[in-house]
Amino acid sequence: MTESYELYYWPTLPGRGEFVRLVMEAAGVSYVDVTRAGEIADGVGALKPLMYGQGEGHPAYAPPILKQGDFVLAQMPAICAFIGERHDFSPTGLQDRYHALQIILTIGDVATAAHDTHHPLGTTKFYEEQKAEALVTAQAFLQQNLPKQLNYFEAVLQKNGGEVLVGASLSYVDVALYHLLEGLAHAFPRGYAKTSELMPGLAALRNRAAALPRIRAYLASERRIDFNLDGIFRYYPELDLK
Amino acid sequence: MTESYELYYWPTLPGRGEFVRLVMEAAGVSYVDVTRAGEIADGVGALKPLMYGQGEGHPAYAPPILKQGDFVLAQMPAICAFIGERHDFSPTGLQDRYHALQIILTIGDVATAAHDTHHPLGTTKFYEEQKAEALVTAQAFLQQNLPKQLNYFEAVLQKNGGEVLVGASLSYVDVALYHLLEGLAHAFPRGYAKTSELMPGLAALRNRAAALPRIRAYLASERRIDFNLDGIFRYYPELDLK
Repeated sequence: MTESYELYYWPTLPGRGEFVRLVMEAAGVSYVDVTRAGEIADGVGALKPLMYGQGEGHPAYAPPILKQGDFVLAQMPAICAFIGERHDFSPTGLQDRYHALQIILTIGDVATAAHDTHHPLGTTKFYEEQKAEALVTAQAFLQQNLPKQLNYFEAVLQKNGGEVLVGASLSYVDVALYHLLEGLAHAFPRGYAKTSELMPGLAALRNRAAALPRIRAYLASERRIDFNLDGIFRYYPELDLK
Repeated sequence: MTESYELYYWPTLPGRGEFVRLVMEAAGVSYVDVTRAGEIADGVGALKPLMYGQGEGHPAYAPPILKQGDFVLAQMPAICAFIGERHDFSPTGLQDRYHALQIILTIGDVATAAHDTHHPLGTTKFYEEQKAEALVTAQAFLQQNLPKQLNYFEAVLQKNGGEVLVGASLSYVDVALYHLLEGLAHAFPRGYAKTSELMPGLAALRNRAAALPRIRAYLASERRIDFNLDGIFRYYPELDLK
């Protein structure tokens, strides 16, 4: 029996922490969402000493950060792949393990691009201070990048039989793609619907993941932080396709 | 004896492909740099059918792409970690393997941030079309982010004894950090020198890596593409610290 994991992430937004939460929930892994256990200020106070290489043991740079005793691991794709490999929720064999890693890295890249649509000039300025640049960036993302990105995930799915992305069974990377698609559909309802309308594999993957008992239970729980106007996937109607 | 690897990357810039090249060179792994074998147009012509999920086998989205027979793998951090794990150039044990992955992901993030200093509005516009935004982004990067990022790598090094980042011997992640630091010092000579002046571990790591016989032989060869005004690390004096 291993000790429960601790997850450290910003307490008020889904962000990159939500990929980690969903993977742990779907894998049936027990964890404590440390920064959300009490007051928000206390949560941020618990997180900050672990950032920028200040922590004990192997230092992290930024959240999400996973901790289990002395073991500390940061970076969303690394945490998801680690949980998958350790808890039988990853493709096996060297090549398939790395194919899954390749895909979660691309999921992370698309998430970053989605974030940059509302913050093209970085997070030191509010969205309201960069709305003009955001509109240009969002339209370029929706018209030029998103169709190629969704086609890519659809192609990976279809070439592997249409059910799961890598290997023969559901893994962490399917759950991560599910969350990416939910986030994109939330942030860009018109852009996502238009771009994905001829991609049956992605639609089926979303439905299958959302119907998993562990995911359903999680989504209905207070452990879930819904999409809001913080973090990666934000619904600003003016940035969506017309 | 395994078949030689094929690397597919843009033929005229170091970019993310250079991390992969350096890791393969330092690991003593044999590879063909496919797009640079003949004319540039032929090279790009060889690369494009592998992009955006069009390739056979397991599809890639974007270069760098590694190929060996039917095996295809994309994403710089995944390729570097794969080469490391397969060719005895990675920390071993589940936790250290993931610590190395965490660090190369952070190296990739800093490389992306360095790239965004000259292209904050994306790559659909030339640098000359976004110089004002680039100046703001570059100064924020150099003044706010880079000191924390370099401190982080220095802390990881020092907490592991000062010689290598993870485990007991040199691995792919040390070579990747070496290239990141070379790139930052090239793009921002004043900013890098000022920021890193009290970080002896980083300076020693750069020297040690540059002195490795395989790296020295590679840097002196025609296989190397020097930093130029394409790719991630570009020297625009106006973007550096004053």
